Amino acid sequence: MEANGEKYAANFSSIKEAQKRISLYIHKTPVLSSETLNSMSGRSLFFKCECFQKGGAFKFRGASNAVLSLDEDQAIKGVVTHSSGNHAAALSLAAKLRGIPAYIVIPKNAPKCKVENVVRYGGQVIWSEATMHSRESVASKVLEETGAVLVHPYNDGRIISGQGTISLEFLEQVPLLDTIIVPISGGGLISGVALAAKSIKPAIRILAAEPIGANDAAQSKAAGRIITLLETNTVADGLRAFLGDLTWPIVRDLVDDVITVEDKEIIEAMKLCYEILKVAVEPSGAIGLAAVLSDGFRKNPAWQDSKKIGIVLSGGNVDLGVLWDSFRK
Amino acid sequence: MEANGEKYAANFSSIKEAQKRISLYIHKTPVLSSETLNSMSGRSLFFKCECFQKGGAFKFRGASNAVLSLDEDQAIKGVVTHSSGNHAAALSLAAKLRGIPAYIVIPKNAPKCKVENVVRYGGQVIWSEATMHSRESVASKVLEETGAVLVHPYNDGRIISGQGTISLEFLEQVPLLDTIIVPISGGGLISGVALAAKSIKPAIRILAAEPIGANDAAQSKAAGRIITLLETNTVADGLRAFLGDLTWPIVRDLVDDVITVEDKEIIEAMKLCYEILKVAVEPSGAIGLAAVLSDGFRKNPAWQDSKKIGIVLSGGNVDLGVLWDSFRK
Repeated sequence: MEANGEKYAANFSSIKEAQKRISLYIHKTPVLSSETLNSMSGRSLFFKCECFQKGGAFKFRGASNAVLSLDEDQAIKGVVTHSSGNHAAALSLAAKLRGIPAYIVIPKNAPKCKVENVVRYGGQVIWSEATMHSRESVASKVLEETGAVLVHPYNDGRIISGQGTISLEFLEQVPLLDTIIVPISGGGLISGVALAAKSIKPAIRILAAEPIGANDAAQSKAAGRIITLLETNTVADGLRAFLGDLTWPIVRDLVDDVITVEDKEIIEAMKLCYEILKVAVEPSGAIGLAAVLSDGFRKNPAWQDSKKIGIVLSGGNVDLGVLWDSFRK
Repeated sequence: MEANGEKYAANFSSIKEAQKRISLYIHKTPVLSSETLNSMSGRSLFFKCECFQKGGAFKFRGASNAVLSLDEDQAIKGVVTHSSGNHAAALSLAAKLRGIPAYIVIPKNAPKCKVENVVRYGGQVIWSEATMHSRESVASKVLEETGAVLVHPYNDGRIISGQGTISLEFLEQVPLLDTIIVPISGGGLISGVALAAKSIKPAIRILAAEPIGANDAAQSKAAGRIITLLETNTVADGLRAFLGDLTWPIVRDLVDDVITVEDKEIIEAMKLCYEILKVAVEPSGAIGLAAVLSDGFRKNPAWQDSKKIGIVLSGGNVDLGVLWDSFRK
């Protein structure tokens, strides 16, 4: 979009186009609420359950928008990506819908259930080491060999536009939201959500939730430029990526703040999602609830007027044994 | 309603009245679907997620209808019930909403999370032995002492009418359903669902799902009269009650058949609910999915034309540790 003189890689129009393109294929996910969690947080909370999206995470929105955007002669050679799991499964499923191959580079430390999803949806798994460098170089090799199109997990306007459709649904379902809290990793989800939500409701507050052990977004916002980390350390396997050059300007301009939380708060939030909401939510997905329940948020005078808060439960792909083990620690 | 010359303890009018009475207080629960589960079953499945109802189960519909139906001078003395858990929590919550006491007789073998729900909603717990006889005699004693009103978990027209509101929502959300599968225990849920669904859509098929180890409904249907069992043996703690004199005529006349399943099928269905639907469902709640995946259902020529099947996921109150342990057996 920058080539057209636009400011960002996506905008309200591209998000509305994405919605038209994908609406027949995605689930319009429900919004849940709980008086128990409202009491605990002292706010009215509305949970957008993207864990119920196809593939078990919001990622199918962006992936299907990207795949359905391809010209026929591009599409036929297939798509490639590298991902810790949810984007991989989503891209596999989107490719399957269109009948084209999906080549998926997966780091060896990806959760088992996420790899199973890739296989279930017919993606071809190619293993890499856990580092971003290894992921990217293996993906480049596959690109060369197949002529397939790279669909980056987040640093891509089509992906950002697809994820932004969440806000179109969410603000139709709960028009009174004054704040939306969104997990941040590479920034694709929050960029789309922020662009659409602030187009519809300019005064709405968009807050990012990030693990302390992978707080590149908080550091980047503070520094005014992209900061990457030498290593990350968090239970939230989906939140270990860093901002990209297309997501950073949107995060810089439209995300009001970043709330960082500890892993133990994430685990407690997962437990509440299970016990109170009755929803399976992975660590990355539960971080928004962890954020609103954190002292950092509750006691911050700046957020006292966030009364009606939308929380994106971004995904639900968590092995039950892992969930149970994490609760007992 | 029998006093008015009507056939059953509830009817379509009483269910529509219940909906008006309770609609401000209950959650309109979402319907989920999954292509993976459609493929596995060979049908189109629609899951009505009563696990997301207040209190974590459908029971709040009936309980709130009963409590809100009481005259002021009846209500002020409070309500009493005996229940293995979900009705108890639901009645506590309904009583709390109206600001009246709830006295809850709970058998000692009730799941921990269900007892916690009662306490969370302000119910006063009174313990009994696990037998129905002990539950009823302790409840009678409390009734005498308090002058409170007994709200039976299922053998009550107000309860049946409240549970029937599920069908009003479900057939509005998915009008094309040709079959609804409902867990059966005391019969309050399926009676309400059947009455409402067959009033709206007379040709709709209503099937009960029951554990083999508590198959009193299957035996009753076969015998043409209420059969009770000396003991029950099933993982589905919510499905151990027997039909009552008010639910039996409705089950006899309006339930097309009873599908019995083994506990291992129930556990497998719970696992699928968690892994595929991303929903916490208790054993009793998962039995409908177990039924459609059972050989008894799949291979029965009588049900081949059940193509668009509604499944009531009746509740989600299951301790995570119990869930995990049951998966490993």
